[in-house]
Amino acid sequence: MEFIKMQGLGNDFIFLDRFSVSDEDGTEDYPELARKLCHRQFGIGGDGLIVVLPSKVADARMRIFNSDGSEPEMCGNGIRCFARYIYDQGLIISDPMLVETGAGVLKLKLFIKEGQVQGVQVDMGEPILRADLIPVLGEGEPVVGQSIEVLGQKYLFTAVSMGNPHCVIFVEDFSALDFDRVGPAIEKHSLFPRKTNVEFIQINSPQEITMKVWERGAGPTLACGTGACASVVAAILNNKTERIVTVHLPGGDLLIEWGLDNRVYMTGPGNYVFKGEWLGL
Amino acid sequence: MEFIKMQGLGNDFIFLDRFSVSDEDGTEDYPELARKLCHRQFGIGGDGLIVVLPSKVADARMRIFNSDGSEPEMCGNGIRCFARYIYDQGLIISDPMLVETGAGVLKLKLFIKEGQVQGVQVDMGEPILRADLIPVLGEGEPVVGQSIEVLGQKYLFTAVSMGNPHCVIFVEDFSALDFDRVGPAIEKHSLFPRKTNVEFIQINSPQEITMKVWERGAGPTLACGTGACASVVAAILNNKTERIVTVHLPGGDLLIEWGLDNRVYMTGPGNYVFKGEWLGL
Repeated sequence: MEFIKMQGLGNDFIFLDRFSVSDEDGTEDYPELARKLCHRQFGIGGDGLIVVLPSKVADARMRIFNSDGSEPEMCGNGIRCFARYIYDQGLIISDPMLVETGAGVLKLKLFIKEGQVQGVQVDMGEPILRADLIPVLGEGEPVVGQSIEVLGQKYLFTAVSMGNPHCVIFVEDFSALDFDRVGPAIEKHSLFPRKTNVEFIQINSPQEITMKVWERGAGPTLACGTGACASVVAAILNNKTERIVTVHLPGGDLLIEWGLDNRVYMTGPGNYVFKGEWLGL
Repeated sequence: MEFIKMQGLGNDFIFLDRFSVSDEDGTEDYPELARKLCHRQFGIGGDGLIVVLPSKVADARMRIFNSDGSEPEMCGNGIRCFARYIYDQGLIISDPMLVETGAGVLKLKLFIKEGQVQGVQVDMGEPILRADLIPVLGEGEPVVGQSIEVLGQKYLFTAVSMGNPHCVIFVEDFSALDFDRVGPAIEKHSLFPRKTNVEFIQINSPQEITMKVWERGAGPTLACGTGACASVVAAILNNKTERIVTVHLPGGDLLIEWGLDNRVYMTGPGNYVFKGEWLGL
């Protein structure tokens, strides 16, 4: 069985191409394959398994399976890799590219230079600023500059949902922050009935911010695409940045634009790591 | 750049073959390659990088680099994979096979069935039972059934070195054990001036034991070859097993024999996971 390994900002995926060589009889058990192949020691290793499939309603269909076998609707880092893979294989030439996911059909724009995909833009949809939909307890909408107390200290936060809840906090300096304790304390704070992702943001300039993210249920990660989007929305709501911002994450950079059409566009890389043939069966 | 990924009891390695395609001009920076290739997200992923080289004093030479670029003398799980790789490539047909390592030239015996390597036996040398050489503070030699107190509870231990120190403790039942707290407390106990690996052992039968290991500086791992050897030596010193014992580790099984020549022989698997071509350069 052949595969390709790709990563987007350090979020890494095993790609199985079933676009042309379709698994028509449906004998492949993808959750089971994901558990086996994603194992870091006994398998190929990966955060997830992405299966490239044909689609009746779009240019291609992406299914993604986490290393525990569960199937999330979508993954921002994964779909950028997906778009690059599909383009490089010569399977699709439409622009924008339409990809069927568990979160509906998404529109992707490819930035190509000398035949090479330099970046992929994903339409991440409109931010949700209604407190009851984020959800966050509190008064006033949007929830900007509200106070939260954890571990005896007060922080001002802005709450934004990009389909999942985010609590964005602006800090002067990461070194003064007890990230490993404050992160999980806010994640589980009673103000957030469904818990929350937590982003700490340093403003470098009106066009540039640095983000440290504590992901809900996952802790510190190299990159969180929806977190970068939510952080830029929060920075704009607080008059700290312009509408197009480069976000520095531990795993690399994303360019985020909150468009005048109220949609958030995320542009970033999808990179090849290696191609291989599974020998473990 | 082509590579093969192998694992022995879940201890996983990237193999670079420089046996025939020797890096004669020595331009490859192996520590740097190890850091890059072993990265789990941005690289191929592995506990270590193993370079297959020709030798003037043995059949082949193994160099191993940890993911941080450091070069240990030897690795029991790695050398079993190495022997299988060398055999399958048809590079060596001698039996026993001689492999040059940082710990000297080691003798390896291959168990072959229908042309397939089923297992590899490694001569792990003689156990060290002298307290000052292990090193462990205390009276009497060998250090069998001595008492140690951690977190307000007393345990009886046997100390054995296989080139590195081990503290072996027999338990009735793992479920009654607070492994994550007791392990590190013993690792750093003042009785062990250079710290120690800690093995908790359940005796299943005179031919079979189950081991849970807390590795010095690494915490819980899937497999520790020297730990399995030390545990069988300790079990024999305590009259709990015979001289040939199957050890169940989290990553799989090892067969350990404390020979009448006072040497310890470890037999276990080396398995292929995948072969690939690096695209990340």
